Amino acid sequence: MALSTAITHLLGIDHPVLLAPMGGVAGGALAGAVSAAGGLGLIGAGYADPALGFGSDDWVRSEFGKAGNHAVGIGFITWALERRPAALDHALGFRPKAVMLSFGDVAPHAAKIRDAGAVLICQVQTLRHALAAAANGAQIIVAQGTEAGGHGADRATLPLVPAVVDAVAPVPVAAAGGIADGRGLAAALMLGADAVLVGTRFWATREALGHANQKALIERSGGDDTLRTSAFDTARGIAWPEPYTGRAIRNAFADRWHERDDELRAEGEAMRERFFAAQRAGDTDTAVTFAGEGLDLIADRPGAGELVRRIVDEAADALTAVPGRCLDPAPAGG
Amino acid sequence: MALSTAITHLLGIDHPVLLAPMGGVAGGALAGAVSAAGGLGLIGAGYADPALGFGSDDWVRSEFGKAGNHAVGIGFITWALERRPAALDHALGFRPKAVMLSFGDVAPHAAKIRDAGAVLICQVQTLRHALAAAANGAQIIVAQGTEAGGHGADRATLPLVPAVVDAVAPVPVAAAGGIADGRGLAAALMLGADAVLVGTRFWATREALGHANQKALIERSGGDDTLRTSAFDTARGIAWPEPYTGRAIRNAFADRWHERDDELRAEGEAMRERFFAAQRAGDTDTAVTFAGEGLDLIADRPGAGELVRRIVDEAADALTAVPGRCLDPAPAGG
Repeated sequence: MALSTAITHLLGIDHPVLLAPMGGVAGGALAGAVSAAGGLGLIGAGYADPALGFGSDDWVRSEFGKAGNHAVGIGFITWALERRPAALDHALGFRPKAVMLSFGDVAPHAAKIRDAGAVLICQVQTLRHALAAAANGAQIIVAQGTEAGGHGADRATLPLVPAVVDAVAPVPVAAAGGIADGRGLAAALMLGADAVLVGTRFWATREALGHANQKALIERSGGDDTLRTSAFDTARGIAWPEPYTGRAIRNAFADRWHERDDELRAEGEAMRERFFAAQRAGDTDTAVTFAGEGLDLIADRPGAGELVRRIVDEAADALTAVPGRCLDPAPAGG
Repeated sequence: MALSTAITHLLGIDHPVLLAPMGGVAGGALAGAVSAAGGLGLIGAGYADPALGFGSDDWVRSEFGKAGNHAVGIGFITWALERRPAALDHALGFRPKAVMLSFGDVAPHAAKIRDAGAVLICQVQTLRHALAAAANGAQIIVAQGTEAGGHGADRATLPLVPAVVDAVAPVPVAAAGGIADGRGLAAALMLGADAVLVGTRFWATREALGHANQKALIERSGGDDTLRTSAFDTARGIAWPEPYTGRAIRNAFADRWHERDDELRAEGEAMRERFFAAQRAGDTDTAVTFAGEGLDLIADRPGAGELVRRIVDEAADALTAVPGRCLDPAPAGG
């Protein structure tokens, strides 16, 4: 079974499942496995900041290599790219199938991406941002709800998606935020989306980067256990612009520092070093494990290709079974 | 066309569309019109507090009268009902088809409702609350996302619904929050829900109570224009327990008082009187217009019966068209 939409046609893929370019988690092995299974893998270059341990030019080169012969794309944080525009040029040298930009003004980068033959994917968090992305030539717009793991804003997926679909037509829309199984994909298609962008669910796969302790935490945590906070960004010394925060699994560090950014900042470089050490060690009481509210639907660690097939099969089952069960041709009251 | 689910069978209705019992907005005329069109109308008795202008025994009697011969239900705010348990006894005297309880422990009321022959509907905002509702004998569980208008909590509809469905089976689940058209209903069914509970969209109908200025504001506002706040509760002197806040359309009052509850409380009785006067006068710069993120999908003021039919027809269209367009029996890669 395949699921065919405007986005599968545009990208030349079999299934409308896109891998969220989770910074430092979506490496070449994961992106390649998603593409090999018929979706589209996107490498997560994040801030393109060598200091963070992922996203440098060397890291990007290495991860494109790990994707092998499978056509993959790459994602950047837009406002961070403004400080390192050469990182985009470097990435375009690997002929990515698509470039996804999130969180900021895409205007300075749009023409360069399209001229390089890559599909321009823009992720937005509000209707206003969606209109701006369409005006700047986005070829796919990802409408990301607040339930998403990692950085995002306040609007929720279910009402945001149809509003964006209506506003930016005929530009196709992918739904992101809270989608972790085939029911979510089927629901997104009903809302008018032509694909889903899935993050957290793909972190709990064998190919994802990140510490095994974090994968295990994702598998045992639930959607009631997350929060949106800037504490983890402050700890890392990353100054995110308004209105963005990061959704992560609540832990001892978040319990202590959430909404105390000024005090946390005052802890200075020593705190920052302790935080990064905890991150490297997989100390999940301190380290940030970005994750979305779809956690309730995640309880195992399959291979990414198997996961793509599972999501597509579940969606196809729902798309077949629900109309068969619910649609009643008898007139109402009959 | 009718849409048949476990909830339509349980309630003996034609369509899986439930009217959210919006306090003081969902009166008997609106509830009756929704039931007459094949859904289930629920009168919004809210706090059952005579001081608020709706929800008193007299008000409830009058609104059941306005529902005419159509079988309707009634909804209460659970924690408020604890102080006025006689209000539930009074309402049960009108033989409601269902009683919906939201925001609090239903255990003290569940047996009384079921013994009276009413269907017990419990609205929840977290997976933990859902498990408690099921343990207390809920016959329908409404999983309400943060995008809902009015009071609610932090989890979002799209990932909350399938998690609740999995956790409380075989108790049927209705989805609430951000659903304002047939695409939302079709998506909810894909997530495993057996109905939707719709609020804001029904406020912008001819039968809804509330000031015409508020209906007009709903019709012209968008989903980017709302916020969750306790300012309007504080202004009214209503002490909501954690973790609940109210989603409303941002206005001058919210811009001034959001997250300044202590200062607002210190303004005292004079402020409260000014606020209620603004509410009566339809001064939407001060008055609270509770509304959800589905606002982008609302631009007119139909009759409620026409709206039920429109939502059902749109859902049936999506349930037919999307599988026809997307399901491709060719093997992946073929």
